[in-house]
Amino acid sequence: MTQGSEQAQSIDLAVVAGDGIGTEVVEQGLAVLDAALAGTGVKVTTTDYDLGARRYHATGETLTDADLAALRGHDAILLGAVGDPSVPSGVLERGLLLRLRFALDHYVNLRPARLFPGVRSPLADPGEVDFVVVREGTEGPYVGNGGSVRTGTPHEIATEVSVNTAYGVERVVRYAFAKAAARPRKHLTLVHKHNVLVHAGHLWRRTVEAVNAEFPDVTTDYLHVDAATIFLTTDPSRFDVIVTDNLFGDILTDQAAAITGGIGLAASGNVNPDRTAPSMFEPVHGSAPDIAGQGKADPTATVLSVALLLDHLGHTDAARRVEAAVEADLAERSTGPARVRSTAEIGRELAARLH
Amino acid sequence: MTQGSEQAQSIDLAVVAGDGIGTEVVEQGLAVLDAALAGTGVKVTTTDYDLGARRYHATGETLTDADLAALRGHDAILLGAVGDPSVPSGVLERGLLLRLRFALDHYVNLRPARLFPGVRSPLADPGEVDFVVVREGTEGPYVGNGGSVRTGTPHEIATEVSVNTAYGVERVVRYAFAKAAARPRKHLTLVHKHNVLVHAGHLWRRTVEAVNAEFPDVTTDYLHVDAATIFLTTDPSRFDVIVTDNLFGDILTDQAAAITGGIGLAASGNVNPDRTAPSMFEPVHGSAPDIAGQGKADPTATVLSVALLLDHLGHTDAARRVEAAVEADLAERSTGPARVRSTAEIGRELAARLH
Ligand SMILES: CC(C)[C@H](C(=O)O)[C@@H](O)C(=O)O
Ligand SMILES: CC(C)[C@H](C(=O)O)[C@@H](O)C(=O)O
Repeated sequence: MTQGSEQAQSIDLAVVAGDGIGTEVVEQGLAVLDAALAGTGVKVTTTDYDLGARRYHATGETLTDADLAALRGHDAILLGAVGDPSVPSGVLERGLLLRLRFALDHYVNLRPARLFPGVRSPLADPGEVDFVVVREGTEGPYVGNGGSVRTGTPHEIATEVSVNTAYGVERVVRYAFAKAAARPRKHLTLVHKHNVLVHAGHLWRRTVEAVNAEFPDVTTDYLHVDAATIFLTTDPSRFDVIVTDNLFGDILTDQAAAITGGIGLAASGNVNPDRTAPSMFEPVHGSAPDIAGQGKADPTATVLSVALLLDHLGHTDAARRVEAAVEADLAERSTGPARVRSTAEIGRELAARLH
Repeated sequence: MTQGSEQAQSIDLAVVAGDGIGTEVVEQGLAVLDAALAGTGVKVTTTDYDLGARRYHATGETLTDADLAALRGHDAILLGAVGDPSVPSGVLERGLLLRLRFALDHYVNLRPARLFPGVRSPLADPGEVDFVVVREGTEGPYVGNGGSVRTGTPHEIATEVSVNTAYGVERVVRYAFAKAAARPRKHLTLVHKHNVLVHAGHLWRRTVEAVNAEFPDVTTDYLHVDAATIFLTTDPSRFDVIVTDNLFGDILTDQAAAITGGIGLAASGNVNPDRTAPSMFEPVHGSAPDIAGQGKADPTATVLSVALLLDHLGHTDAARRVEAAVEADLAERSTGPARVRSTAEIGRELAARLH
């Protein structure tokens, strides 16, 4: 694995195309990655990993220790989407997707929400929307700590335990402050529910107050998660950086995607900022079996995830150019002649803008 | 306490006006209640309970056993809003509001979301929005089961435990099915996150499947909570009845309020359907200290909560007339001359429509 964030001359990429539209969008994401790096001398090598519903049905495996060890050797992972209705709920989520996030210590789940010029929002008056959600990725109710007793009887009790540590909260909060400090507005909003989830909530609140001392030029405010959904509807331009826990981040980023044009455009990075393991980049959307294999999926979310990947590996120029290509493409969608393009056509046109 | 849902000839009401705008909106809610029952022979008697921030500062008390015992004697409770920034977060929420919901076994938190004709939604194309959220009220992460160790040190661990029982889930799911069966569309959507919160989620899912057998004419579907926030943004008219847990219900009902005109209009009932204790009706909004005492608050959410109260006590005609008065008032707001009305003026005009 390449260490450090300086620009490396090669990218050794693990590719988990996954299920459904995952394979279609990843193909275009890789084409755009190549185009973005053409002429830079940076060499991309890819290794495909067969993970997801197909593999599960064939072998019963979700992610073996050997898979995990092999994945660890790469510079980064590009994931399309995993999942299929034929697999029982939770199997691939817990056994593959979340296992990767936890095992590779992806404690930052980075999800930008930007309403690109020309993109229609379902909000009547969205204003300028450009914020980023820093969602904690390795704690909260996602830890898998819970269970059920007397399962299936009238006396069943099922619990889910949200686990939050000073160690885990502090590192993601510090990352979020650094992110905010690097942005023009320098504003950080903590979202939680500390009036009800008092223990976890107060840990988050105290941590934000404490870390704020290291970033005195960042302003902060606080919203309960319920109120945050209101402001995402009525005044999303108020947000700059949001830091929140794993579950609230899951909820808010889907809402954020909805108001900025849909999950067809929403990118995400599962980031290990300490670089002790490869980070993983994936569109927020799922495998969408209903439209799989038809070339209907919009690869833009994957392409924007590739931009996050490039950023993470220090190829910031290439990252900016990928974003600019997407921006130009989206602007043309709104002003140019109406065209229904296939997944491959969108990918090809994005790549063409980069050559 | 009056038993049964047949129309009683008197209502013995406990009133918790509370803090901030709570007192202002409750005054109007009571005026509308009187107007709605004028001529019906139903006599309303009210008893004020001094609960909330004021009482807490004066005595250190949130809700004493004596308060609770006294409240139990009433037919219903009307609550304005409690809370003030001067009270530490969680004290009044856990010590008063949630204590009431839990002690009085308000296992149904009923929150209708309707976009009244003429009301402007922040959504560009909301369609016809008319659904009701049946939020569980006595379980989930709201149980107060959690804690922290090594608090305030770098080794702090804070947990929050979501507790879900077959008993608790089944009764609220059955209520939601009955609600759906009584509506024209007869559709019930379960919202949870069973791909991650597998234990609680599967209990909810199995319960919905099982209870569906008692309501064969009700159709059902399932959404993960993150996807639900998307559909609330892009296609809210798809919803008829939503049943969900305490925390997801908290989040979704604020978003639902936002898309249907704001929390100034959002009503709620904390209902004990078994009538073993009085139910409590309250607007979804809080005490809004920033606008308190200025007559700026919209009492409509409280008035619609009064309609839910009337419904619960069997005065369905009066309930419908209150809703009709609100509907007419809201329609006039959109077509009549622009007027800024005070809290009292809105209340007065609503009452006048009922006389
Ligand atoms: C598939 C699921 C486990 C996942 C999550 O809840 O994190 C998804 O919703 C996401 O947001 O990436
Ligand atoms: C004030 C708070 C405890 C409460 C809740 O979370 O239930 C409120 O947000 C609500 O929705 O009634």
